[in-house]
Amino acid sequence: MKAEIINIGDELLIGQVINTNASWMAAQLNLAGIAVGQISVVADDAQHIMNSITEAYGRADIILLTGGLGPTKDDITKHTLCKFFDTKLVFDEASFQNIVKLFGSRDIPITGLNKQQAELPECCIPILNPNGTAPGMWFEKDNKIIVSMPGVPFEMKPMMTDKVIPSLAEKFDLPHIFHKTILTVGVGESFLAAILEDWENALPANIKLAYLPQPGIVRLRLSGRDANKEEIVTAVENEVAKLVKLIPDLIFGYDDDSLEEVVGTLLKAKGLTLATAESCTGGYLAHRITSVPGSSHYFKGSIIAYANEIKMKFLSVKESDLSEHGAVSEEVVKQMAEEARLAIGTDYAIASSGIAGPDGGTEEKPVGTVWLAIAGPNGTLSKKFQLGDDRGRNILRATILALNLLRKVLKGS
Amino acid sequence: MKAEIINIGDELLIGQVINTNASWMAAQLNLAGIAVGQISVVADDAQHIMNSITEAYGRADIILLTGGLGPTKDDITKHTLCKFFDTKLVFDEASFQNIVKLFGSRDIPITGLNKQQAELPECCIPILNPNGTAPGMWFEKDNKIIVSMPGVPFEMKPMMTDKVIPSLAEKFDLPHIFHKTILTVGVGESFLAAILEDWENALPANIKLAYLPQPGIVRLRLSGRDANKEEIVTAVENEVAKLVKLIPDLIFGYDDDSLEEVVGTLLKAKGLTLATAESCTGGYLAHRITSVPGSSHYFKGSIIAYANEIKMKFLSVKESDLSEHGAVSEEVVKQMAEEARLAIGTDYAIASSGIAGPDGGTEEKPVGTVWLAIAGPNGTLSKKFQLGDDRGRNILRATILALNLLRKVLKGS
Repeated sequence: MKAEIINIGDELLIGQVINTNASWMAAQLNLAGIAVGQISVVADDAQHIMNSITEAYGRADIILLTGGLGPTKDDITKHTLCKFFDTKLVFDEASFQNIVKLFGSRDIPITGLNKQQAELPECCIPILNPNGTAPGMWFEKDNKIIVSMPGVPFEMKPMMTDKVIPSLAEKFDLPHIFHKTILTVGVGESFLAAILEDWENALPANIKLAYLPQPGIVRLRLSGRDANKEEIVTAVENEVAKLVKLIPDLIFGYDDDSLEEVVGTLLKAKGLTLATAESCTGGYLAHRITSVPGSSHYFKGSIIAYANEIKMKFLSVKESDLSEHGAVSEEVVKQMAEEARLAIGTDYAIASSGIAGPDGGTEEKPVGTVWLAIAGPNGTLSKKFQLGDDRGRNILRATILALNLLRKVLKGS
Repeated sequence: MKAEIINIGDELLIGQVINTNASWMAAQLNLAGIAVGQISVVADDAQHIMNSITEAYGRADIILLTGGLGPTKDDITKHTLCKFFDTKLVFDEASFQNIVKLFGSRDIPITGLNKQQAELPECCIPILNPNGTAPGMWFEKDNKIIVSMPGVPFEMKPMMTDKVIPSLAEKFDLPHIFHKTILTVGVGESFLAAILEDWENALPANIKLAYLPQPGIVRLRLSGRDANKEEIVTAVENEVAKLVKLIPDLIFGYDDDSLEEVVGTLLKAKGLTLATAESCTGGYLAHRITSVPGSSHYFKGSIIAYANEIKMKFLSVKESDLSEHGAVSEEVVKQMAEEARLAIGTDYAIASSGIAGPDGGTEEKPVGTVWLAIAGPNGTLSKKFQLGDDRGRNILRATILALNLLRKVLKGS
């Protein structure tokens, strides 16, 4: 059972709009056990739409189209579908009544253009669109399904979940697909691949692994497919359990978890509070922590000590240490974390001091040198990292490393 | 001149990752005068990649591929391109030296997998990837161009702008296209469109206007196209001059300027310093300011006072004001700004206090209520804003509004 998605719209081809419909639709289809073979974005052009439908029809069992159903003249999907199915447009009273109802509630007059939206290909089953004037259309031919939907996300999405997905599940005997994404932090993709090689090679044939790297984080996605739902869930979970044994410390969460949420959940569960004292991360660490709803329950505040005088005044960093060891040093970062913990009055404090770049590097401390510290009730942990030479990425990676250090401390305590 | 984009990756077909690469690449190609005919998203599957390249090759002059170039075994683009061009992989010393250099700076061992990344199809011109281990590949055949790039955005984007787009412009005789983007802040798209209607209608036929809205900011892009380079540059600049007269206060910069850079440049030019005192923005304001290279010349630090006790302890906010007016009030935000300016010892300080959401709203102060203040040598300015109900967007918009308030104060002084 293979589906293809065709998104129609010039605005997608000139890059003005990001195609969020495609990923959302693909996720819905996958959750329902339908694999997506291809996504195609094509122009508001009759011949191009015709070609893409014809090509997809040769490859897939299900074709979902979005876009090109509005009342303005660049919308031509409907006419193209008439041509593809060799049929004609007929007036659909139910679709027209839906348009009348929508316009009534908005108190605006119905134009001839709007009335034309109730004209649909004779061979289709109309799909009611409670959120807009363009109906969806369901076609069946040679045991294949073609569905045309509006491109506006808040019209397309309920049509998919309420009508299209349930109808597809009814029509086809679908295999069960189960995905689990394991989130790792701390080592790169190739290092991880080397550790996991034997496990990966021993995966059952119906479970696939994908590496999805992001700065500082590698996501591992396992996708299993089977006729039996319970069996494939169990099989994937078994592989996850083996993986957890291989790299217990590197895994921080699953699926849509974020590191800041995971740390927040750990703090909340233990009734602990947090502060930060930031130099090179410049507030980004506090931002990531406070981007989590409800973070005010455990995060009290932060001192962003960019200038050395602020490190001395607010974080009691000794002038002698600054002149002897420099701001980017173990001595300074530990004082920052310890004083932030005491002054802000929290259980834990994270501190950062580094050279984000592009300027400020020396031979001894090149751009990318970062010291991090975690002060807590059982003492202070500090660690040095050597990152790259891109300022934005250094700030991002230092923040992820800092959150991960705290996560490990909280897990250990 | 027609291009097609092929994005390779199972993660795109299961809907786990939104295909932002496609829209960004499409925008870059359009800006260079190359129309995009189709975008295809295909699986990490050799036959599928082969078919999609073959199909696109029949329709387009330029094919840009992303993805499938990593060191792990689900990456197969390179082998497929070898088959398509009937060639073999050969070791490329320059690409290997780039890998060695990248690993050297990170102090991690090179694996056999990494070394394989320096093996490239014999007929391609390698494209150096300064941000990652997978080189890009440039192929020419029958006067058509195929380029393969990594799927990781921060590796692909510089490759596109620094190498691929300039090489395409050299290879094909493209019309002269001149773009100028005018950056506005403070009013929404429809309000702006109403002010600019007459000017827009009077634009020459070869100059087009696009509205590109972002949270808090509307970018206006003028794109002129002409056989003569000087003439189109002059014509576009004339229209920009007219626009500046219409909305002088709303324009904060041009092209790739950012609000934080513009503010930083103003501060540096006047030899002034800055601090922040943040509640609802939670460090994001300090982060945006410190994301600018060299910001340590004018930014000294920040107090992130998330908890009320921190507002009192570090920012001398009166307990009576907190209980009488609440933390989200003019009284409190002004004290925060004024005390941050004094305590951190800067010429200016920005303060924020608001309800970012999703919790914490009341009837009197719903989610999205934000107070901002700017304290400076000539007194304190404060202003209230009513934003929306999305936490992330509220933090972002409050930050942009705060930077813009400071920009206006600095412009006026």
